[in-house]
Amino acid sequence: MFVQLTDLHGSLSDPLLDTMNFLNEVTARFPDAVSFAPGRPYDEPFDTTVIAGYLDAYAKHLERDRGLSQRQVGGLLFQYGRTKGQIHDLVAATVANDEGIEVSPESVVVTVGAQEGMLLALRALIRDSADVLLVASPCYVGITGAARLLDVPVEPVPEGPAGTDPAAVRAAAARVRASGRRPRALYVVPDFANPSGTRLPVAARRDLLAVAASEDLLVIEDNPYGLFSRTPARVPTLKALDRDRRVVYLGSFAKTCFPGARVGYVIADQPVTGPDGQPTLLADQLSKIKSMITVNTSPLAQAVIGGMLVTYGCRLRTANEERIRRYRDRLNALLDALRRHLGANPGVTWNVPEGGFFLVLSVPFVVDEAALTRSARDHRVLWTPMSYFYPGGEGRRQLRLSCSYLEVDEIDEGIRRLSSFIASEPARAT
Amino acid sequence: MFVQLTDLHGSLSDPLLDTMNFLNEVTARFPDAVSFAPGRPYDEPFDTTVIAGYLDAYAKHLERDRGLSQRQVGGLLFQYGRTKGQIHDLVAATVANDEGIEVSPESVVVTVGAQEGMLLALRALIRDSADVLLVASPCYVGITGAARLLDVPVEPVPEGPAGTDPAAVRAAAARVRASGRRPRALYVVPDFANPSGTRLPVAARRDLLAVAASEDLLVIEDNPYGLFSRTPARVPTLKALDRDRRVVYLGSFAKTCFPGARVGYVIADQPVTGPDGQPTLLADQLSKIKSMITVNTSPLAQAVIGGMLVTYGCRLRTANEERIRRYRDRLNALLDALRRHLGANPGVTWNVPEGGFFLVLSVPFVVDEAALTRSARDHRVLWTPMSYFYPGGEGRRQLRLSCSYLEVDEIDEGIRRLSSFIASEPARAT
Repeated sequence: MFVQLTDLHGSLSDPLLDTMNFLNEVTARFPDAVSFAPGRPYDEPFDTTVIAGYLDAYAKHLERDRGLSQRQVGGLLFQYGRTKGQIHDLVAATVANDEGIEVSPESVVVTVGAQEGMLLALRALIRDSADVLLVASPCYVGITGAARLLDVPVEPVPEGPAGTDPAAVRAAAARVRASGRRPRALYVVPDFANPSGTRLPVAARRDLLAVAASEDLLVIEDNPYGLFSRTPARVPTLKALDRDRRVVYLGSFAKTCFPGARVGYVIADQPVTGPDGQPTLLADQLSKIKSMITVNTSPLAQAVIGGMLVTYGCRLRTANEERIRRYRDRLNALLDALRRHLGANPGVTWNVPEGGFFLVLSVPFVVDEAALTRSARDHRVLWTPMSYFYPGGEGRRQLRLSCSYLEVDEIDEGIRRLSSFIASEPARAT
Repeated sequence: MFVQLTDLHGSLSDPLLDTMNFLNEVTARFPDAVSFAPGRPYDEPFDTTVIAGYLDAYAKHLERDRGLSQRQVGGLLFQYGRTKGQIHDLVAATVANDEGIEVSPESVVVTVGAQEGMLLALRALIRDSADVLLVASPCYVGITGAARLLDVPVEPVPEGPAGTDPAAVRAAAARVRASGRRPRALYVVPDFANPSGTRLPVAARRDLLAVAASEDLLVIEDNPYGLFSRTPARVPTLKALDRDRRVVYLGSFAKTCFPGARVGYVIADQPVTGPDGQPTLLADQLSKIKSMITVNTSPLAQAVIGGMLVTYGCRLRTANEERIRRYRDRLNALLDALRRHLGANPGVTWNVPEGGFFLVLSVPFVVDEAALTRSARDHRVLWTPMSYFYPGGEGRRQLRLSCSYLEVDEIDEGIRRLSSFIASEPARAT
């Protein structure tokens, strides 16, 4: 039998879910291109034998600190596990040490990456089609994609040079209310946002929480890049500033441990009151949803991450010193290369992020998929059109550059090629 | 801030998502009870050191059979991976060897257990609120729970003693059409269904496919227990009989390898035609959805399962001979114990499944949560009320017994206790 695409769920006809396919396809077609497209971590020379060491560290922790027998440890690794996860105590200790976030381990749901956390949070919080999710614009496609899957309406909040402007959040909430709907939650990446690289100043963080309180919004804070600062300045997360349990916090071990485990987490310490008056935590409600999505996060993968956390004393900031330096060097190399190769071009500008994996370059012509194909074919350099990240399709003269995956000398060569691509494109009016 | 349960998505107020919590809570309160409740596999004395061996087997396979370097192998295990999965070729070889299912590896999506596969299939196939999912009744809560999360309406198909009756499917489809909606797909577990233990005879399988064709239904076949037959008779899966690419097949390695990996798969070889005429596979559409749910199935967990498949020559039927015998012995022990302890009680009957983990016991009184609490507290025996598995709440005088997790001597003692519980309950009219 044949199935018509139009006969499937509408998300599958939405270009949003196809953008990554186009990027992957271009990358595969031009393997010798320098690629500023993927936001993935640097490919470390990881040896498979380290896995056994981490499993062993986790098993020893269970035997020593929790008094489990070898047989019980085997059961925890090989059987079905607790839906909320089994390294929740280690996760809670880690966010306390690294971010000053003090929560009960019962507030933690261990997820299949932060992506599952987004889906859990959206499904729980959005009651029906009258509920709207506010998102920074531009915005990570994982959240708009998850919203699309669940038919959740999205209201963009235009981002300023310093990230999500609290006044813009208030204005967006008012627009939603004026349309007869409820602004339910705001998704935001305050630290080195993907794609823009912006970091929200601490005063704006306090204002954002105040706006969330006055507009009765929950805040979904996603923090995959927070550790990777280019400067020594520390800025507290929204969750660390949250006195009102208004922030649902999404974390990931993909960048601080390794992506192949697919382990992330949600912190959801909001009390939920049921009709029987029995209070539960929002984490318990997320767990009920998780039981129908993935049942539990691979206990094996959790054990490996658990072993890493035990080995690092639940301090990823310390354990990641080398990685933090590596990403800082890459971002500095990208900024240097841009100054060197494009500094004399008045039509080209870029922002200077304080950390993270990304920055945004503005050019005087339209950078669509056709332009990306020309760039890859004729100049052997890849990047991501920023229009992918705007719910409204703006950003047609902007591109995202990611430096996380490249070597320093590749970055310089890549920007040299990008400069020749830019020089070859006539400035266009549309 | 406080959140009201009624202010969250409706699924969270549905008893469906709470039933498992009640079971877990009762189990925790009565740890010395013999529990026929969990459908989980037997707790094998698994040693964590075997993991390193499987990882090594998978790495050697990649180096030898795919010519990858050690560095590339490290990248495959530790980085983000292909959304559709990276052991798809091994999965395709395994279903060919074990089930005679011949499909291209491109039709395979590796998932976080079969549960994620259900969610992917439902999200893709159900276009809007006019599309209805047909499910056998009684039915596995994972599918009705996933449907509830996505607000997918469900139409029950009453099951007969030999499983899903094709004529009942036709009648259910007619009922849905009469309501102005479209019967879109049928979810079915033809082999040793959870909870009923029924197996669909081969003639009924052919009829079911014919009904699906005439009613233009897709069939979602879920097969977690097929290998665990009590008798040597082999019955082909619906997918093996499918000449029309009408069956989407869900598989799991939880029972044939181990649950803690959380690796399953979907086979979706249906061609999908888009507006541009470019054909894709349904698997590619599922992959687009997966990219917004879990991004990819843990490459580390896939590598361990991949190593097991390589080690077993992609033949799980052979590799599971010992487990098949173990589950057969347990089911036989359960049937023996029922005859011994309850055979003289004319009010109590049960079915005699040809395999799997479950059977259904009918009793002359209502077995609700209160009865379960009495059974646990006063007789130290646990089971699952069958009403949990009926979308319409029927089955109030039936309970599910699972024997997969118990030792043979525990089974006998448990049924002795069950018999004393049954004797203590007055036969009730309601």
